[in-house]
Amino acid sequence: VGIDLNADLGEGFGVWTIGDDDALLDVITSANIACGFHAGDPHIMVRTCAHATQRGVAIGAQVGYRDLAGFGRRRIDIDADRLYADVLYQLGALYACAVAAGSSVRYVKPHGALYHAAADDAAQAGAIVDAVSAFDAGLPVLGLAGSKLQAAAEGAGVPFVSEAFADRRYLSTGRLVPRTAADAVIHDQAAVTERVLRMARENMVRAVDGADIHVRADSICLHGDTPDAAALARAVRAALTEAGVELRAFAR
Amino acid sequence: VGIDLNADLGEGFGVWTIGDDDALLDVITSANIACGFHAGDPHIMVRTCAHATQRGVAIGAQVGYRDLAGFGRRRIDIDADRLYADVLYQLGALYACAVAAGSSVRYVKPHGALYHAAADDAAQAGAIVDAVSAFDAGLPVLGLAGSKLQAAAEGAGVPFVSEAFADRRYLSTGRLVPRTAADAVIHDQAAVTERVLRMARENMVRAVDGADIHVRADSICLHGDTPDAAALARAVRAALTEAGVELRAFAR
Amino acid sequence: VGIDLNADLGEGFGVWTIGDDDALLDVITSANIACGFHAGDPHIMVRTCAHATQRGVAIGAQVGYRDLAGFGRRRIDIDADRLYADVLYQLGALYACAVAAGSSVRYVKPHGALYHAAADDAAQAGAIVDAVSAFDAGLPVLGLAGSKLQAAAEGAGVPFVSEAFADRRYLSTGRLVPRTAADAVIHDQAAVTERVLRMARENMVRAVDGADIHVRADSICLHGDTPDAAALARAVRAALTEAGVELRAFAR
Amino acid sequence: VGIDLNADLGEGFGVWTIGDDDALLDVITSANIACGFHAGDPHIMVRTCAHATQRGVAIGAQVGYRDLAGFGRRRIDIDADRLYADVLYQLGALYACAVAAGSSVRYVKPHGALYHAAADDAAQAGAIVDAVSAFDAGLPVLGLAGSKLQAAAEGAGVPFVSEAFADRRYLSTGRLVPRTAADAVIHDQAAVTERVLRMARENMVRAVDGADIHVRADSICLHGDTPDAAALARAVRAALTEAGVELRAFAR
Repeated sequence: VGIDLNADLGEGFGVWTIGDDDALLDVITSANIACGFHAGDPHIMVRTCAHATQRGVAIGAQVGYRDLAGFGRRRIDIDADRLYADVLYQLGALYACAVAAGSSVRYVKPHGALYHAAADDAAQAGAIVDAVSAFDAGLPVLGLAGSKLQAAAEGAGVPFVSEAFADRRYLSTGRLVPRTAADAVIHDQAAVTERVLRMARENMVRAVDGADIHVRADSICLHGDTPDAAALARAVRAALTEAGVELRAFAR
Repeated sequence: VGIDLNADLGEGFGVWTIGDDDALLDVITSANIACGFHAGDPHIMVRTCAHATQRGVAIGAQVGYRDLAGFGRRRIDIDADRLYADVLYQLGALYACAVAAGSSVRYVKPHGALYHAAADDAAQAGAIVDAVSAFDAGLPVLGLAGSKLQAAAEGAGVPFVSEAFADRRYLSTGRLVPRTAADAVIHDQAAVTERVLRMARENMVRAVDGADIHVRADSICLHGDTPDAAALARAVRAALTEAGVELRAFAR
Repeated sequence: VGIDLNADLGEGFGVWTIGDDDALLDVITSANIACGFHAGDPHIMVRTCAHATQRGVAIGAQVGYRDLAGFGRRRIDIDADRLYADVLYQLGALYACAVAAGSSVRYVKPHGALYHAAADDAAQAGAIVDAVSAFDAGLPVLGLAGSKLQAAAEGAGVPFVSEAFADRRYLSTGRLVPRTAADAVIHDQAAVTERVLRMARENMVRAVDGADIHVRADSICLHGDTPDAAALARAVRAALTEAGVELRAFAR
Repeated sequence: VGIDLNADLGEGFGVWTIGDDDALLDVITSANIACGFHAGDPHIMVRTCAHATQRGVAIGAQVGYRDLAGFGRRRIDIDADRLYADVLYQLGALYACAVAAGSSVRYVKPHGALYHAAADDAAQAGAIVDAVSAFDAGLPVLGLAGSKLQAAAEGAGVPFVSEAFADRRYLSTGRLVPRTAADAVIHDQAAVTERVLRMARENMVRAVDGADIHVRADSICLHGDTPDAAALARAVRAALTEAGVELRAFAR
C-alpha cells in the first residue's frame, strides 16, 4: 500500500508569507505550488520549486482565480475560454520555474473557489482540463472524487487523481462539510491520524451522520495554514510510516 | 541576403486593445508577444500565439517590468534575483500559450524601460540572460547591438540577435536618438524604406550628424503603435522583397 | 420637464483608451467616472474630473469589482464587508480627484457585474449603500428602478435615482433583455430617440412583447463604448432639446 | 516638551498580515496607514482607521508606489503628473475610510522608495506636495528634515513635519546610514531609548563618526516590522513618559 501526501505551498506574495513551507516539505510528497494569480509570485515560485526539487517532492501547479485580494477564495463567473487561458498561463509560468530548478510540473490542482467551481460547474471544470490537455495531455489533474473535474478529465483522456482530506469532515454524500460549519475541520491529532490511516488502507471514512462511506484517496491533502499544521502533518506521516504505508508521489 | 522583421504584438489587456495585430502579422516574420506584466493577458496571449502560428510567424517572449499602469515604460530598480524570476515566469507563461498553439517560444526580447535597462545596466541585463539560460540556453535574445544585454548573452553562451530600428534616428555612437527628442522618429515612408534597405543589405545607416555608421541588423524592428504603422510595415516589406531581400525569421 | 443624461467615462487604463470621452462630455449632464478597480487609473481620473468640471458635468463614482482583467463584467462572490470597503475606497479616491478639479462627487453608480449584483443581491446592494452612507448619507445612488439597490437605499435613507436605458430593449417585467440576446440593443437612431423622448416625458417604454410599461427615468443612460456612440448621444440630446425637455444633472 | 510617535500600520494585503498593529496602536500617537498601492487593502484600511480612531491615534496617509510585489521598496521613474495622481488617489481612498471611522486624514507620509525619492528628487517631492495641496493645503507632510520634500512643502506653503528615527544610525551629514550597511539599525533597547530621549529633548543625536549632530524631531519614527518592534516601542514610550516628555500627535 502506498499513498501521496499533498499540501499547498508557496502561498506568500512579495514580502508577505503564510504557512511553514520548510516544515511541510519534510513531510509531503507533492507540493501544490501557487502560480501567482491568487497567491505566489515569481520569486517565491522559483525558490519553492528549488526547495521542493532538493527534497524530492513532486511539483504541482496550484492554479487559481486572478484574485490576490481575495486569495482566490471568491467565486468568479469567468468565461470558459478566459479561464482556459488563465490556467494555461499559470501552468506555463510554474513550468519555467520548475525547469530552472531541474524538475518539471507533475500535476495540476485547482485552488480555493476554483476548486469548488471545478467540483460542480462543468464549464469551469472543462476549461481547466482543456488547458492541462493543451499543454500536456499526460499531466494528471488532482481533485475531488466524483467532481465535474473528474468527469471532464476522464472525458478528455487526462489522468485524474482523487484526494481525500485529512482534517475535514465528510457528509454521507461524499462531499465535505462546508467550511462555514462549526465542525467542518477536525483539530484532534489522534482523530486525524486514525482517519488518514483508514483512508489510505481502506478508502473509507466515517461521515458526520455516522455512516461509513467510500472515499477514494490516491492522495491525502494536508492543510498548511492552520495552527499546528506542521505538527499535524508530521503526525500523519509518522502514523502512515509506522503502519507500513509507503509514502510516494503519485506523479514523477 | 535575408532579414527578419519583428514587431510588438498582443499589447492589449482585458477589453483594451492597441495596435493592428492582424495587419502586422501579414508583414512581420517574428512577433514579440507581450507576456502579461506590462501588457497582454492570458486570453490575448493564447489568441496571438494561435494567429502567429497560423501565419508562420515566429513567437518571441516580449518580457517587461510588472507595471501595467505604466506599460513597462518606467524604469524600476528591481533586484537581479527578482527580475530573473519575473522574466522566467513570463517566458514560461508564453511558452504554454505557444505550445497550445502548436508552436513554441523562439526568442526573448525585453520591452520598454527594461529594454533600455538591459542596454546599460549589467545587473538587469544579466538577470534577463540568466532566466533565458535557465529555461533553455539555446533560446536567442533579441536586443540592441553593443548593449550590456549582448555582453551578458555572449558571456553566458546564449545566442544574441541584433536589431536595428526602421523608423528611429541614430546618433553617430550607434545609440538611438532619445524618444524625447523632436526628431527621434522618422515618419516619411520613403525615407524609412530606403534606410531599411541599406540596413539589410549593407548594415549601414546615416546618423543624425551625417556620418554613415555601421549597424548590425539581424532583424529590423517595426513599430506597431504609431499612426500608419501597418502601412509603413507593408511598404518596408514590399521594398525589401522587391530588392530581392529574403524575409525570414532568425529563429525557427 | 427635465431629464439627466448619464454615461460611463474615464474607462481607459494606463496607455489604453476606450470610448470618446470628449464627445460625450458635450452631451451628457452626469459622468459616471471609473474609479480604478474595473477601469480607470488615477491619472485618467484626475483628467476626466477636470474635463467634466470644465464643462459643468456632474461627477459620479462608477464603482466596480476589483477586476481590471475582466473590466468588472464578471460577478464575484465577495463578502459584504469587503465590498463595502472596496466601494468606500473607490468613492474616496474619486472624491480626491474631484476636489482637486474644484468639484466633488455628486452620486454613485455601480458598474457592470456589480450593477447586476446590486439589482438582485440584497447583501451586495446593502454593502454599496452602506459605503455611500458611511461617506456621505446625502449622496444619491443611481441604479435600476425596482432593484435591491433601490430597496437598500430607501431602507438606509440614502437618495435613490432611477435610470432608464436609451438603447436597450425591455422585458414586460421592467427588466432589461439580457445582453446575450440578439436583440438586446437597439441600433436605429430614430428608434432610440423616440424611446428616450417617451421615457423622459411619459416614463413609458414599449417592451419586447409589445406591452407599454412604466419605466421611471430620472436619468437616461447612454452607452459610450458602442460604435457611433457619440453620434447617437448627440441625436438623443438634440431630440430632447427640440422637444423642450430641459437637460440637467439630477445632482449638483 | 512634547513629541509625536509615528509608525507604519495596516501593511498587510488580503489574507496576508505583517507587524503587530494592535500593540503599536497602544504606543504611537500617529499611524501611517498604507493606502493600497504598496500595501494595505480597502478592508484593512477600514479596520485600521477604526482601531486608530478608537484609541485616539491620528491617521496619516502612508502613500507609496504602485508596487505590491515590491512593497513599494523599488524606485520607479514615474512622471510627476502620474505620481501626483497616484498620491491624490491614495489620499482620497484613505480619507473615505477615515471618514467612515468618524475621523479624517491628518497628514501624509511617503513610504519606502518613495520616501527616499522624496528626499533627493525635486520632481517626485513636488508631485507629492502638489497632490496634498490640491486635496487640502493645510494637511501636513511628514518626512526627513532637509529633504527635497521639505523644500517642496515650504515652497508650496504646505506644513512640513520633521521626523527622526529611533533605531537608525545617522551620518554626520544628517542623512541615515543606508539600510544595506551592516550597522544601519540599532537593536539595543537601552541605546535606542537613550537616543530618542536626546532627540526629543535636545534635537541632537550622535552620528556614526562620533559627532553630535542636530536632528529636528517633531515626530519619532518607530518601526513595526522588526522583531521585538512592539517591545521596543513600549520601551521608548515608557522612557519618554518617565522623562516627562508629553506624547501627543503633531496633527489633530
